[in-house]
Amino acid sequence: MNCVFCQIVQKKIPSYIIYEDDYTLVFLDIAQDVDGHMLAIPKKHVQTIFDCDAETLSHLMSTVQKVSHHCKKCGYDGINLLNASDESAGQSVPHFHIHIIPRKKNDQIDAWPHFPGSKTELTTLHQTLKMEEFL
Amino acid sequence: MNCVFCQIVQKKIPSYIIYEDDYTLVFLDIAQDVDGHMLAIPKKHVQTIFDCDAETLSHLMSTVQKVSHHCKKCGYDGINLLNASDESAGQSVPHFHIHIIPRKKNDQIDAWPHFPGSKTELTTLHQTLKMEEFL
Repeated sequence: MNCVFCQIVQKKIPSYIIYEDDYTLVFLDIAQDVDGHMLAIPKKHVQTIFDCDAETLSHLMSTVQKVSHHCKKCGYDGINLLNASDESAGQSVPHFHIHIIPRKKNDQIDAWPHFPGSKTELTTLHQTLKMEEFL
Repeated sequence: MNCVFCQIVQKKIPSYIIYEDDYTLVFLDIAQDVDGHMLAIPKKHVQTIFDCDAETLSHLMSTVQKVSHHCKKCGYDGINLLNASDESAGQSVPHFHIHIIPRKKNDQIDAWPHFPGSKTELTTLHQTLKMEEFL
């Protein structure tokens, strides 16, 4: 397995580990794009939210919540969560990961993407996307 | 309860509903900032990931995954997920919500925030954030 995150899980590559349990690992992102940027991953190799089983997703979100609470204890006020599932969405490492960005009031960080504006009417999008079997 | 998302849940305010079950609702964001922008919310009023109980979080993530799979069936290749928990993180409506942005290859959308660059050394951040009781 050449997956860099699997190698981090196996401690073959060193990382700044924030939290670890049997199912998940949280470590600092080394991009240094924003202070406190962490990645929460399942230890099991799944690629995206699409192929992640329910149990693994549940472990991962429990960890994300645990780390979020911990950030508050460390003096942060809020957090942003981001996930890209699939290369088309900007995913760079094909091992499922949730970005956690701890936030403080007036920290001058803009964690919202610069979206280009919608091209399609809401009614058209609604027709395309609605899940009729559940409505 | 003046919460606008609770009013959407109660159908007091109309919305473009994509998916609904006993615990969760997914509807189109009306900001029209990017095609297919959806919001997944728990029907129960919780504000952020901080006060969301485990069961509600599990229902919400299961719905997010269901809708993600559905996006693939609709011809999308990937998805982005975003959450802001707390006003400091840019949360505008104080009812827990996860943004779902369906993506296609080469759709020219940049869903990654423009972060300002880190100001603090990784070793310092690591000292601040690591959860020693779990390491």
